[in-house]
Amino acid sequence: MTSPKLDILAIGDAIVDVIASCDDAFLIEHNLPKGSMQLLTPAEADTLYAAMSTAREMSGGSAANSMAGIAAMGGSAAFIGQVAEDQLGMIFEHDMHALGVRFETPSIEGGPPTGRCLILVTPDGQRTMNTSPGASHELSVDALDPVLIASAQILYLEGYLWGPEKPRRAMLKAVEIAHESGREVAFTLSESVCIASRKEGFAKMIDGGGVDLLFANQDEALQLTGRSDAEAAFNELKAKVGTLVVTRGAAGATAIRKGETISIPAAPVGQVVDTTGAGDLFAAGFLAARAKGAGLERCLWTGAIAAGEVIGHYGARPIADLKALVQL
Amino acid sequence: MTSPKLDILAIGDAIVDVIASCDDAFLIEHNLPKGSMQLLTPAEADTLYAAMSTAREMSGGSAANSMAGIAAMGGSAAFIGQVAEDQLGMIFEHDMHALGVRFETPSIEGGPPTGRCLILVTPDGQRTMNTSPGASHELSVDALDPVLIASAQILYLEGYLWGPEKPRRAMLKAVEIAHESGREVAFTLSESVCIASRKEGFAKMIDGGGVDLLFANQDEALQLTGRSDAEAAFNELKAKVGTLVVTRGAAGATAIRKGETISIPAAPVGQVVDTTGAGDLFAAGFLAARAKGAGLERCLWTGAIAAGEVIGHYGARPIADLKALVQL
Repeated sequence: MTSPKLDILAIGDAIVDVIASCDDAFLIEHNLPKGSMQLLTPAEADTLYAAMSTAREMSGGSAANSMAGIAAMGGSAAFIGQVAEDQLGMIFEHDMHALGVRFETPSIEGGPPTGRCLILVTPDGQRTMNTSPGASHELSVDALDPVLIASAQILYLEGYLWGPEKPRRAMLKAVEIAHESGREVAFTLSESVCIASRKEGFAKMIDGGGVDLLFANQDEALQLTGRSDAEAAFNELKAKVGTLVVTRGAAGATAIRKGETISIPAAPVGQVVDTTGAGDLFAAGFLAARAKGAGLERCLWTGAIAAGEVIGHYGARPIADLKALVQL
Repeated sequence: MTSPKLDILAIGDAIVDVIASCDDAFLIEHNLPKGSMQLLTPAEADTLYAAMSTAREMSGGSAANSMAGIAAMGGSAAFIGQVAEDQLGMIFEHDMHALGVRFETPSIEGGPPTGRCLILVTPDGQRTMNTSPGASHELSVDALDPVLIASAQILYLEGYLWGPEKPRRAMLKAVEIAHESGREVAFTLSESVCIASRKEGFAKMIDGGGVDLLFANQDEALQLTGRSDAEAAFNELKAKVGTLVVTRGAAGATAIRKGETISIPAAPVGQVVDTTGAGDLFAAGFLAARAKGAGLERCLWTGAIAAGEVIGHYGARPIADLKALVQL
């Protein structure tokens, strides 16, 4: 078994964010629960886009944002995700490379276009996400590079890809490759909606030791375990994974490993402008620190600092000098 | 002759801006004079894009930015410009409509893609623009809607389109239609480089009374007149147009009409973040006020306030409530 060359390799949605401001009335009118994520059909996405105000476009995707964050902190990161051969795909690829993230998944032609996420930001900084996944959900086992997977210390998987069958199979194959190479597998539940319909498959993976590190918030943990009490849900999950990381938004985060439980508050933030990417950057900080051998508390704080940076501006990727901020 | 239904109709580049930060060394390395505008071939644009850092995309185009500004000030505006049937074209169209700007030019298929402008912003807030005009320069006489042109009080033309033959012909035809309908024609020299090679044609138009209102800065006036003294250049130009508006960046602006000369300083700005769009929004303010029947001084101040807003943030289109700021 060789020693890993990369800190983290992620598999996730390859998405361009389309970010616009709106007021609370707009969300109500369009039946969009504030702070949620919906999957839209192409027609639904077109209708919502037409109603949205003028927007700015920036590369996004949950795990891709995390890899951008890890690169910004000085870590070595790679990403596997599916774009189409179009302008948004070109933008996504450019931004990954510009950040120093290794990204070599060939684009596909003739299928759906590169995915986009229509993000509505209300004056309180909350984001409501409306994803038209497009090519992103066409990720297949064929797109995997086994050598790349084996070369990364941590394989990080995004729950948004757990719903559709094709990328779910690719993720299961990647877990197999990573574990055969002695690597660690991290998984983020992303949004409960993606796990709900595929709960049994997920339970099977987690029961079989497929996940070494699990990121979850309260809603996701309740959905996944089918319990009504959050503590009971976390207790059930922590017995199945090496490390359980519970995120609580403005209330901070907790990590649990082998009986050790450490909680921290959220990092202080100036003005909350746009919470898009907060969870992604938290995971980035945690994983980047873990790859450097940091203990649980340091991992949590690094996540909190990275999340705090991204909340202070529009867009889900860091702008400030994260390397200086976190000093890994 | 019917009374106009629209305040302003503009003809200009339909472009999506790709905005990234860079340091001064990057500009030197890539031979890009700070604050300038270059036209790039598609291959040159790809090379520069690959070297640029991670970017955000926002709809742009000089005259299109001006129309966005006019709509934001409560004026009625329309735009004619050429996009391709692709994702960037869809973004451009969406943002025009979201702002309330009438935009109905049919997109074209099978030709070059929608134009983009790679904008590099240095820490001092200066922008260096690198335009790959794409479909934008395919605007033809056929794309004109004569009824729309005749319905606008002011026809506003962008100098960037004066270089290539096809859109230049379209602009000349539009001038003819506007004047036949008793409308006013405004022209911005945009960037001296676009006028230089087509100086004779421009002189002919201006000598023939084609331009009622001309926006120019010092460089552009010198280039156009071939003089070496700015005052002499302005004196020559003011004799040929009804109104000459001279912009001087941070030193303010001057309007000259029938012997009346009024100068104002630049509006006070907090932090200069990104000067992209400053000239476009100055023109927007001036034209919006003029369409409401304001005098020269009010027109100048409205322009200065609109320009001041756009300098304070990234991107060439207003974010703040311009209507409240200018109170036309």
